[in-house]
Amino acid sequence: MKVGESEYRGIWQGDDKASTVMVIDQRRLPFSFDLMELRSVDDVCMAISTMAVRGAPLIGAAAAWGIWLSFLEHRNEKNISVSVHSDAARLRATRPTAVNLAWAVDRVLSSKDPVSEAKRIEKEDLAANLALSRHGASLIQDNDAILTHCNAGFLATAGDYGTALGVIKFAHQQKKKIYVYADETRPRLQGARLTAWELSKEKIPHTLICDDMAGYLMSKKRITKVIVGADRIVAATGSVVNKIGTYSVAVLAKYHNIPFYVAAPYSTIDFSLRSDSEIVIEERSVDEVLVVNGSPISAEKSAFNPSFDITPASLVTAVITEKGILKPGSF
Amino acid sequence: MKVGESEYRGIWQGDDKASTVMVIDQRRLPFSFDLMELRSVDDVCMAISTMAVRGAPLIGAAAAWGIWLSFLEHRNEKNISVSVHSDAARLRATRPTAVNLAWAVDRVLSSKDPVSEAKRIEKEDLAANLALSRHGASLIQDNDAILTHCNAGFLATAGDYGTALGVIKFAHQQKKKIYVYADETRPRLQGARLTAWELSKEKIPHTLICDDMAGYLMSKKRITKVIVGADRIVAATGSVVNKIGTYSVAVLAKYHNIPFYVAAPYSTIDFSLRSDSEIVIEERSVDEVLVVNGSPISAEKSAFNPSFDITPASLVTAVITEKGILKPGSF
Repeated sequence: MKVGESEYRGIWQGDDKASTVMVIDQRRLPFSFDLMELRSVDDVCMAISTMAVRGAPLIGAAAAWGIWLSFLEHRNEKNISVSVHSDAARLRATRPTAVNLAWAVDRVLSSKDPVSEAKRIEKEDLAANLALSRHGASLIQDNDAILTHCNAGFLATAGDYGTALGVIKFAHQQKKKIYVYADETRPRLQGARLTAWELSKEKIPHTLICDDMAGYLMSKKRITKVIVGADRIVAATGSVVNKIGTYSVAVLAKYHNIPFYVAAPYSTIDFSLRSDSEIVIEERSVDEVLVVNGSPISAEKSAFNPSFDITPASLVTAVITEKGILKPGSF
Repeated sequence: MKVGESEYRGIWQGDDKASTVMVIDQRRLPFSFDLMELRSVDDVCMAISTMAVRGAPLIGAAAAWGIWLSFLEHRNEKNISVSVHSDAARLRATRPTAVNLAWAVDRVLSSKDPVSEAKRIEKEDLAANLALSRHGASLIQDNDAILTHCNAGFLATAGDYGTALGVIKFAHQQKKKIYVYADETRPRLQGARLTAWELSKEKIPHTLICDDMAGYLMSKKRITKVIVGADRIVAATGSVVNKIGTYSVAVLAKYHNIPFYVAAPYSTIDFSLRSDSEIVIEERSVDEVLVVNGSPISAEKSAFNPSFDITPASLVTAVITEKGILKPGSF
């Protein structure tokens, strides 16, 4: 995506191509557009755990490059494999819920050419986003008003299109008349900060709302479709793990007979789990709930802060992947 | 409610008893407990429109005292009735959605003794809150986990109990083992600021959540009842107008077979409307969405900010009033 005079993707190798990876620091968007240079696996772990880098596909790509950095860091060690496996475990632990992280780590770990494998994961993500965006856009009609939750755009992936926002961008490029409502997405406000920013950059008509306003808009028939991303999709059950609040939106969509689509690369589908109960829902610091922009919003000392929720297949109309538009349970 | 060493209610006459009304400035809670002296109908209009004074029953009581202040201000004028009616129109326009405001204004306006009538409205509200809290508490059982949205406590009323929180407080005083989840209630964060503060003061076990987390808690069977307040209840349809987000909570409760109760004084029931389409939903400044604690959360210049939504009778288990627990449509 173009920012100022330059074209950016979600992640790229540093200028020297030899020892660094570059990302956008998403904690500071949209108020400041800052790049971050990741020089070590520690840097990558920090970037992921603080959510400077976020979005399941981008976390996967960053972790892939993280393993490459680990191989570089330990290249002169006798027991390089032990060190890299230890780094891989640390990377996997940064955020337990998204499946792409562990999947990307494992791919680079078991490859003979880490840099090529990391590049391949990045390129595959770009290609998958474009393909799923094209598939998804076929579902969008003139005058659709689309609700999205959190950010599943260029910023959440290796770049270009994104997933849920990719579908929206592709439809917009096809000159379909669409309107987007963006949930602000408490507590981290990815919708208010990132999705609204991306939609503005793409000149797609949109309105920001608080999360508790979506039901009201649906009751007024002002939303015709919902599209969200995913952090993990359980193949065995069809359940979709995504940003906290997604489940509420899915229930509201069902109640109002509004189609609820999930857009995600096929790598998001987890064939290893037998049931939803095996999913680990990350709980993050209560400060994310209690403090906004550095100042407290409550006198409370504690709060509840699950980062994700689980939407059952019964609430999902279809999953939009690069392989096509799939029914949950038929992956 | 006791704050520091003193007992407070929602509104009271100033020390001189002759020319001022006192309220708590709710914009600054819980970070600062400041009293506001209202010396004129202008002061009352400002306090209501800026939400220094908020909550339908308290707005009603404040408007009642506002008419008294208007009578005082214009007491030496020939056309006192014209001036007071003009003030009444301004008061009614401050917030169009709550029914108590217009109802209280009309009562004092048509009374022969404004100060007594304002006092009567205040006392009636206190008595109604106590009675409805007692009725409502009969619905609460040991181990109930109750979700509430916005603030319908002592701060939203003339004082003491409140409505939705009144039911919770009464059950707590009956030594029932209960747990409360408080929606933060964007955009104005009345849950995070006011409800959490009241629950802490009353030592009622509770947890603050973001609005988009309620569905997840329900899916985990961690919520057994929902209780909210109301700004207007349409007698003809049974629909409940309350803080934006209430409707979403009601849909979620229905989907999970969780009882959804509305607690409000009988004066909240509007017998004048024939249909929900006559309800005016106040839209407030977009800055309430875009700015938190004085700093922006988005680069957007616009947003959607309806203050209320409408929950149909089909989603309401019962309405708890001082006259008893009523089924919507049988008022």
